[in-house]
Amino acid sequence: MTDEERGRGPGRPRDTSIDARVVDATRELLAEVGFTATTISAIAARSGVPGSTIYRRWPSRIQLIEAAAAPPVPQLGPPTGDLGRDLRRFEDALREAFASPLARAALPGLLAAYQEGQPSRPADERLRDSWRPAFYAVLDAAGPEVVDPTIDPDDVFDLLLGSLLVHSFVPTWGARRRRRPTATPLLLRALRPPAGA
Amino acid sequence: MTDEERGRGPGRPRDTSIDARVVDATRELLAEVGFTATTISAIAARSGVPGSTIYRRWPSRIQLIEAAAAPPVPQLGPPTGDLGRDLRRFEDALREAFASPLARAALPGLLAAYQEGQPSRPADERLRDSWRPAFYAVLDAAGPEVVDPTIDPDDVFDLLLGSLLVHSFVPTWGARRRRRPTATPLLLRALRPPAGA
Repeated sequence: MTDEERGRGPGRPRDTSIDARVVDATRELLAEVGFTATTISAIAARSGVPGSTIYRRWPSRIQLIEAAAAPPVPQLGPPTGDLGRDLRRFEDALREAFASPLARAALPGLLAAYQEGQPSRPADERLRDSWRPAFYAVLDAAGPEVVDPTIDPDDVFDLLLGSLLVHSFVPTWGARRRRRPTATPLLLRALRPPAGA
Repeated sequence: MTDEERGRGPGRPRDTSIDARVVDATRELLAEVGFTATTISAIAARSGVPGSTIYRRWPSRIQLIEAAAAPPVPQLGPPTGDLGRDLRRFEDALREAFASPLARAALPGLLAAYQEGQPSRPADERLRDSWRPAFYAVLDAAGPEVVDPTIDPDDVFDLLLGSLLVHSFVPTWGARRRRRPTATPLLLRALRPPAGA
């Protein structure tokens, strides 16, 4: 987007403080008033940036919300090689990312918007560039005695991501007996090479 | 709800055809125009039932959409006892339930509404009364050599439900290499008792 914007202006550098003000206002509104009420006019009023300027920088409200609510890059440190410990640390970090008021407001609303035909790019790129590679690193650091190399790590990541979506956003569907379910023990079992292999 | 309604009326039996017309109109609208545009006034116009009558039967638009879009009771037949086969059949049926235009329109919109404080009852009850027991039946039909009895079946169900949510509603987050991912092989591995147990 930056290249496009640069190409468009008459030589004047883009004022990045405007972007930051708009994104900050969007984050605050999502956490305070929720997805539906985070409209471009509410964002304009909060940030002091006119709606027309916002629309020149983000083609739609949905794309602005995606940019504002993209999951943070995980701050995990290098894996220890202890798969159980690393996997639980990873699960806890992703669960925490989903638990923020910002994520709770934005993510289900974005999923609903995608079903109504809104395009999705930043969320895609952010997961591909951050959480997935961090997950591959956890598996790579573990030995072949605990991670079967024939398993597609994306399949395991999707189980983990999915269980966190269920626990974070579908709480009432649960009818569950335990308070704080965790996927890690089952994933450890699923990753293990078959006996005698 | 039926008991409440019976208690409320002046002895006249409730006209169930009105309920059916409203629910049918809601289903059609969800599939045709999506979650946002399925308003009470659109449902009233489509069904011919006045909005005031609709609100007497469902306290909110969200509760009407839940009733209309609750996942169907699974029609799986009894498990065969072949865990791989039964689990894949179960996964395929749940995936198919999520793939209907009705479910695609309703489920992400409902998840978003729950985050904005809307109560959720029917979806909860429907999963508890239908898909979860059908899943327990699949595990119960398999022998202890393939299902470790110490595993909580709800944990495994949540992995499966979650991976289906990811594959059904977060397609662009994927960056996946394979076309039609399936959770069954990993779940089979996770369920297996430890070697030597």
